[in-house]
Amino acid sequence: MTADRKAVCLLSGGLDSTTVLALARREGFACYALSFDYGQRHRLELEAAARVAAALGTIRHEVLRIDLRSFGGSALTDDIAVPKGRTPVEMAGGIPVTYVPARNTVFLSCALAWAETLEASDIFIGVNAIDYSGYPDCRPEFIEAFERLANLATKAGVEGRMRVTIHTPLIRLTKGDIVRLGHSLGLDFGLTWSCYDPDPAGRPCRACDSCVLRAKGFEEAGLPDPVLARL
Amino acid sequence: MTADRKAVCLLSGGLDSTTVLALARREGFACYALSFDYGQRHRLELEAAARVAAALGTIRHEVLRIDLRSFGGSALTDDIAVPKGRTPVEMAGGIPVTYVPARNTVFLSCALAWAETLEASDIFIGVNAIDYSGYPDCRPEFIEAFERLANLATKAGVEGRMRVTIHTPLIRLTKGDIVRLGHSLGLDFGLTWSCYDPDPAGRPCRACDSCVLRAKGFEEAGLPDPVLARL
Repeated sequence: MTADRKAVCLLSGGLDSTTVLALARREGFACYALSFDYGQRHRLELEAAARVAAALGTIRHEVLRIDLRSFGGSALTDDIAVPKGRTPVEMAGGIPVTYVPARNTVFLSCALAWAETLEASDIFIGVNAIDYSGYPDCRPEFIEAFERLANLATKAGVEGRMRVTIHTPLIRLTKGDIVRLGHSLGLDFGLTWSCYDPDPAGRPCRACDSCVLRAKGFEEAGLPDPVLARL
Repeated sequence: MTADRKAVCLLSGGLDSTTVLALARREGFACYALSFDYGQRHRLELEAAARVAAALGTIRHEVLRIDLRSFGGSALTDDIAVPKGRTPVEMAGGIPVTYVPARNTVFLSCALAWAETLEASDIFIGVNAIDYSGYPDCRPEFIEAFERLANLATKAGVEGRMRVTIHTPLIRLTKGDIVRLGHSLGLDFGLTWSCYDPDPAGRPCRACDSCVLRAKGFEEAGLPDPVLARL
């Protein structure tokens, strides 16, 4: 039990980060949720993050604006087409155009800045190295390198007052495991959002990598996706 | 000679980052200067960065807005008083209130994102571990940990197409060495800005840590500071 220990939880509003936030809450952390407005092409993700942060009883939800579009380089922020209809096996074959350069490095750095200000020694991130769509910054060796960096980077670390831990409770789970875990925690997945390319009416496309992985998760878990059920 | 190799150069517009940019240019790099609008209390720093970027022939100068004030925790972004009248020895006694949480971690992460997009394998930063005012994220062990992280974080690194190098040419120089080096490169230090707390007329306070260190540098080098000379 870690009552009153503060944690910064990165929250996109998708399946994974929502499950991680629920886990951190169950472990008794006082949670500070951090989302990014980084020039995503749609806003539904940030709306989902706000719903989730409120529903799960976070102390504060901060949306940090950082315009990664200045740099270009991703279908999530540029006018490059989002790939559609790929199977999970095809996704694993390489790093997709939806990859945002150094995204998790930037996000974890900002989480570290907030953690240091809050004197929180715990950071939670929902990275996943199994059904991970080929992102380099979701692998355990990346997370370990970041944790090492974090403990050299901060005033509190250098003064020996704080040892930062990066928690990645989903890193070795499949999407099916994650859906089962969230379900067992009583999560309402209807609050979450995953699609990279919703239609103008705000419905998921069901064909982008994120929709395909989400569907795989619910199928493996043998559960309905409440977002699709209400369409 | 490394003609046409691209480099991302972090540029605050102060003595150190300006000297680093001049060095990168002399080494033949095509330079992409990156500054941050992170909620500094004054704008003179960003104006200096723009002047320097133009004068030194960068390919592009990007000012990335990221509002670290959301997190609080520093006299540079909050309403905490900037310390005045400290000697360099006093500054070395601890980490000052002007420390911005995890600042160089955030800045280097963003530089990495741009470098990856540009396919630039070189990042320059003007950190200094001698006259460094006690910042943990200016030490060689921090920079080495970031370089290691960078090579695990990116698509290009993972695919073996790019090996990122973090260049810190000033890390073991004194402020006097830096002024002499900049002078030998023909730099006009009148373009630069250092003060944390200028008066309403835009004159440096001459008493904050940054002014004190700058004065020490010009004194050690036996050169006049053109910014003070024109007052």
